[in-house]
Formats: sequence, C-alpha cells, structure tokens
Amino acid sequence: MSSLEIATQNETRILSVLVENKPRVLARVSGLFARRGFNIHSLAVAPTDDPERSRMTIVVAGDDATVEQMTKQLNKLINVIKITDLDPEVSVQRELMLVQVKADPSVRAQIIEIAGVFRAQVIDVGTETLIVECTGTPEKLHGLEDLLRPYGVVELVRTGRIAIARGTKAPKLKAVKNKPAAG
Amino acid sequence: MSSLEIATQNETRILSVLVENKPRVLARVSGLFARRGFNIHSLAVAPTDDPERSRMTIVVAGDDATVEQMTKQLNKLINVIKITDLDPEVSVQRELMLVQVKADPSVRAQIIEIAGVFRAQVIDVGTETLIVECTGTPEKLHGLEDLLRPYGVVELVRTGRIAIARGTKAPKLKAVKNKPAAG
Repeated sequence: MSSLEIATQNETRILSVLVENKPRVLARVSGLFARRGFNIHSLAVAPTDDPERSRMTIVVAGDDATVEQMTKQLNKLINVIKITDLDPEVSVQRELMLVQVKADPSVRAQIIEIAGVFRAQVIDVGTETLIVECTGTPEKLHGLEDLLRPYGVVELVRTGRIAIARGTKAPKLKAVKNKPAAG
Repeated sequence: MSSLEIATQNETRILSVLVENKPRVLARVSGLFARRGFNIHSLAVAPTDDPERSRMTIVVAGDDATVEQMTKQLNKLINVIKITDLDPEVSVQRELMLVQVKADPSVRAQIIEIAGVFRAQVIDVGTETLIVECTGTPEKLHGLEDLLRPYGVVELVRTGRIAIARGTKAPKLKAVKNKPAAG
C-alpha cells in the first residue's frame, strides 16, 4: 500500500498477477511498489485452484504510463508468472464488504430494509448491532456505506476488488507477461 | 505470503490489523512476515470508512505461540494502530470468490442449478463460459469449487477472508495492541 488513498473507479486500474506460491513473493512485490512510489489502493492475495499458484489482485491509482511502468517492473520479479491489466469495460469486478452497524431494536427494521434494497445479507444480529454482508462494485458498496453511516458504523472491512475478464465479448486483455514458471 | 499453502480453517487464524494509510506499511508488514518465516495463507488490504486508515486481514497458519510471536512483531511496527486476533467461534468470516467455468449451452442449466444451491450469482454469461460469484466460508467455497471443477475451471479468483467479531455474545477479542496512532 504505497498510499491507499481513496480514488474513484475511473482513476484506478486492476492488475491481476499470477504468482508462484512461494515464500517472499508478497514481500518482493510490495517492496517494489514501495520503492518506486506506486500507489496501491487495495490488494487481495489468495490461493487459486492450483495450490502451487496464488493470485494477487492489485487495484492501483495511475494512468497508462504508470501502469506500464508497474507491469515492466513486476515483469522482472522472479515468481511472477503472468500479469493481466484488466480493462474495466470487459471485465467483471467485485468486492466484499462487512459492516457492523449500531442497531438497537427501534432502528433494526430500517437497516434490514436498506440491506434488502442492496441485496445485502444480514449475517449477525446482536442486541445493539447488526453485521451486514454485501458484494458489488465500489459504487454500490459506497452507496450502502453512505446509507448505513448515520446509524453509526462500528466496524467496516473490505476485501479489495477482484476481477475476471468477461466471456461475453473478445476480451481486450493486455497480457503483458506470460512466461513459464521459474523452476 | 510467506507460503500460501492451503490449510484447513482449523489450522488458520485471522489477524485483523488496523494500520495508518501511509506509504510502505504493506512492505513493512510483508517484509516482517518473510524475514520471520511466518506463513500467510491469504491477505486482504483495503481502506476502511476512515480514509486515513486501512485494514489488513491476514489469514495465517499457526498455533497460539506462532500467532503470539506475529502479534508481538507487528506490535513493533510503526503505523500499526491495532491488532485483533479474531476467534472463529465469536466472529463472522467471509470470503468472495469469482469462478469462470466452461459452459457450452448443453451444460449451462446444470451450472446455473449448482450456483442456485450455493446461493451464488451468475454474473456473466458468454458463449462458452459463465462467471459465478459466491461469498461464504472457506468450506462453502471449496464445496462449490469441487462441483464446478468437472466442467472446467477457466479462472478462479478469491479475495481471502475478512472477519468481524459478532455482536451476539460478549466477543472474546484478544486485543493485543491498541495504542494511539503515531503522529
């Protein structure tokens, strides 16, 4: 997270980076971004369906030139298998958010109603709080957050965005690296 | 990601780390984990409702002693505001997964039916593929993955888990650090 400043979706880009599931990969990538002063908005790293590989989904702030620089630098790192610069127009992007909101019995129904409009799930009901789970685009999640804020947000956690290129049209994927995994 | 080896939920622990939204924080944390040889299973980093703070949700493999060591070391890092070791029994844990699966028209209905059982959403339909979005516990997501795998998984992306302590009972939170933010 060079600087996790809030940026609108228009100002952010998504790099989907397939890496070998080896020690130090995350440290190498985040060290590179820190040294170069690249801004990371959010980051999600988890294993893929192949246990030997993980995927890092990096939401970055920057224009074409910055993203080109980032991919060039990532390209040099060992353990990086493939970098995809996902075009928002031909990819689906989703993020998960959990929000714990103050909800005494007098306002509980209002909050449940708001959750319903956003197709969010109430996944925990306490005496004084509710926990709401919602997935969607950043705009949708911000919208829900704005409506819940007046009740009092106790805690809010996001995963950061993940994305996949759509199958609906020929994906304008910019595959900038696709080499065999280092041995 | 010291090593993102797949571990069952029983073998993993969740550290929820509130950090200042400043450059180099991610590099410091991941560098620390790499140096100490701590295993990170997944990591999700994103801004909170306070734009000056981000939350890192770190799923780690390890026993009590290891987690104690991790929190002690994290404790020493500047920019770390609060570390919470979330007990799975008194917290809700969720992860988001997107799966693109091969789906020619002859099997499309079968896949949509599987998605329905898991309360997953089909968020993209292409001529040869579908993209399914699902949130849940790791067990649920593994279950869906197992059922989709025979059709051919084109791409699978996870966010890594995020979590919030439940409001339903007195949360057995182990707040191991709660200091004012460094100036």
